[in-house]
Amino acid sequence: MKSLLIKNSSILTMTGRDKPFLGDLLIEDGRIAAIAPAIEKQADTVIDGKGMAAMPGLVNAHNHASMSLLRSFSDDLRLMDWLEKKMLPAEARMTKEDIYWGTMLGAAEMIASGTTAFADMYVHMDAVAQAVVDSGMRASLTRGLVFLEDDGGRRLTEALDLVENWTGAAEGRITTMLGPHAPYTCPPEPLAEIIALARSRGIPLHIHLAETLEEMEKIRARYHRTPTEYLHELGLFQDNHVLLAHAVHLTSEDVKRLAGMRGGVSHNPVSNLKLACGIAPVREMLAHGITVGLGTDGPGSATTLDMFAEIKAATWLQKLASTDPTVLPAEQVLRMATIESAKLLGIDGEVGTLEVGKQADLILIDLDKPHLQPVHDLHSLIAYSATGADVDTTIVGGRVLMHKRRLTTMSWEDVQREAAQRASRLVEGL
Amino acid sequence: MKSLLIKNSSILTMTGRDKPFLGDLLIEDGRIAAIAPAIEKQADTVIDGKGMAAMPGLVNAHNHASMSLLRSFSDDLRLMDWLEKKMLPAEARMTKEDIYWGTMLGAAEMIASGTTAFADMYVHMDAVAQAVVDSGMRASLTRGLVFLEDDGGRRLTEALDLVENWTGAAEGRITTMLGPHAPYTCPPEPLAEIIALARSRGIPLHIHLAETLEEMEKIRARYHRTPTEYLHELGLFQDNHVLLAHAVHLTSEDVKRLAGMRGGVSHNPVSNLKLACGIAPVREMLAHGITVGLGTDGPGSATTLDMFAEIKAATWLQKLASTDPTVLPAEQVLRMATIESAKLLGIDGEVGTLEVGKQADLILIDLDKPHLQPVHDLHSLIAYSATGADVDTTIVGGRVLMHKRRLTTMSWEDVQREAAQRASRLVEGL
Ligand SMILES: [Zn+2]
Ligand SMILES: [Zn+2]
Repeated sequence: MKSLLIKNSSILTMTGRDKPFLGDLLIEDGRIAAIAPAIEKQADTVIDGKGMAAMPGLVNAHNHASMSLLRSFSDDLRLMDWLEKKMLPAEARMTKEDIYWGTMLGAAEMIASGTTAFADMYVHMDAVAQAVVDSGMRASLTRGLVFLEDDGGRRLTEALDLVENWTGAAEGRITTMLGPHAPYTCPPEPLAEIIALARSRGIPLHIHLAETLEEMEKIRARYHRTPTEYLHELGLFQDNHVLLAHAVHLTSEDVKRLAGMRGGVSHNPVSNLKLACGIAPVREMLAHGITVGLGTDGPGSATTLDMFAEIKAATWLQKLASTDPTVLPAEQVLRMATIESAKLLGIDGEVGTLEVGKQADLILIDLDKPHLQPVHDLHSLIAYSATGADVDTTIVGGRVLMHKRRLTTMSWEDVQREAAQRASRLVEGL
Repeated sequence: MKSLLIKNSSILTMTGRDKPFLGDLLIEDGRIAAIAPAIEKQADTVIDGKGMAAMPGLVNAHNHASMSLLRSFSDDLRLMDWLEKKMLPAEARMTKEDIYWGTMLGAAEMIASGTTAFADMYVHMDAVAQAVVDSGMRASLTRGLVFLEDDGGRRLTEALDLVENWTGAAEGRITTMLGPHAPYTCPPEPLAEIIALARSRGIPLHIHLAETLEEMEKIRARYHRTPTEYLHELGLFQDNHVLLAHAVHLTSEDVKRLAGMRGGVSHNPVSNLKLACGIAPVREMLAHGITVGLGTDGPGSATTLDMFAEIKAATWLQKLASTDPTVLPAEQVLRMATIESAKLLGIDGEVGTLEVGKQADLILIDLDKPHLQPVHDLHSLIAYSATGADVDTTIVGGRVLMHKRRLTTMSWEDVQREAAQRASRLVEGL
């Protein structure tokens, strides 16, 4: 039985019940075995957590990690220019190996900024899964399905193969979902089939919803409905566990359509801001009992995978939209980035809070920095002042993936070199 | 003649004329002596800039740095609760020594996050000035003047003493302004006197303007005008160089009133978001030729002094407000944080761009990080993905204030200890 003891850190459990307190945290066989003011047990490894805050690892509820290769390639463009002139042509060149190394780059960034689990929708998901295995992260993987072109059948086969081959892999760190891409790329018939299939097999679903006004108009013109109404009528929100990405443009009727759903919404405020999509009605969704977590979306749009940026942007935007600075206070938005996101991935029984019995997915934040002193309120400090660079140690299932800012599961030199070479090839001439 | 040579960095001049290029930068006697693809001169000190971006130091155009002591003390509160129940009682306890150490803490954070110059308005400005001397930073200092209570005369004397005693001090790194605090704390008579005094002596002015809707209502009730109209009619925008902080709530008439003014506006988007004040009409101001720079405001509200957070928030908000992702592109917003802010401080002839003859106020950003790879577009990468923690080296007037993230002009241990002790005393029982 391997054990790891973290001594003397300020512990933020994120259960919503505890104030931060100084204490020790014992990990045995990958799980949290004890949390207490002082643990006097021997352990195989001891980490000095003095001057640090321990909290659950952040959970990125919506990502396309391998798009890291296209970071900073096409900013400050209109969405359609961004997509059609830059992203799609570059993505069309991506090989399976590119996607592996792009995901490794994304994993390096996520581990280095305190993210321990992520939901990812993309293609060549075997390569993404291999990067999850190699990086040591936890992930919910989805093969994105579009039905506007030929060959939707092959893609569906790939999607089901992913579920078949990878669910529960990497010591249970990998889970899977089915991923119809978005209302505007999925006509009613194949979408209804996938919803039925997912329901009968108990597979969760991951789908983009109502990201842009253009989508609203498209679905209105095509089906005389809002995108949410379109999905609702196909029965998506009845029994399936569904992870909805964005949900920016919802009518108040739409919010009611989502009330009571299983799963919930990944709010991705940085991407929504950068692409000028709008402000998602997070406050209204929360008032209707809808689970709202946080995600970055792909680094092609958000540029960074730093969840601390999403934490800030999320609370700022709700304060702004409601002209009320008390909305989404620090602790609540930190819970969105941890346990609420974990609920969206369906792994909240295992991670997302620091509680005895749960998987030891946690991070240590080094507070010995000018912008994190003095310490009046730890939740405030972490939500409003910390960035990913303040994470000192990242642990998944008891395994240390980063300590003192050194990545332990990959060679950063290799990742950097592969990413740079492949990125140049992808964008050449675009 | 002391010289410093920075080799092989990617140089971003921020002049608006140059694309980033790989090269060397020579500093002699505190000024930039040469910038070229390769400089073959000997130098007293050589810094290896490989894998780094060199750019002008960031200029924080509106700050109350010593409020660092109250960081994270009172977040998620309504503005009046924040001010009256928390900030004012804690500030009332502040001694001159507290303000010195608070400013040193702020300086540590600014240097560590790439800020080389700042505009500061507060009290006990001799202590702030001493911290500027000791930290090695550049600053424009202002004694805040309120006229709602007794003893405005003493404060004005202090303000003029500051101008008299400190202008040009610290090898010219300190400049000064006169600081009537805000329209709602300065009645017409004393305000008109200060404007006239500033004009006759050629002293610039620093004032808060139109930060909140409450201020709009107050000035409307008192003077039947907008705050901008109120200042305009007192002649503030005729000849004086004026640094306006916030300017969130401007009518289109107000924007026209500011067109043609000397100085301009410090936009402080993070504070505006956190206090739910609103979105300043930056795009409209720019369209009217008004200079707009960036500031953090005090860390009591903004929590952090990281200008990279302001850079992101500024472009995000203008994109959001105009539903157009092409607004305030990366290079333009980086110019706002450097040369445009420098214009507001009246030091753009000396700093704000990398040009031969200017003071060597510059930073090196370490790009060898997961979130800053691959490099497709340096401006995009720095605006949208970098944080203050990526700054490796900070130089002011040729003097290295931080290198490899080590502060050279202060003992961080001393600053941390003093700040923590004093901060506890300030908030005790509040
Ligand atoms: Zn997405
Ligand atoms: Zn201010």
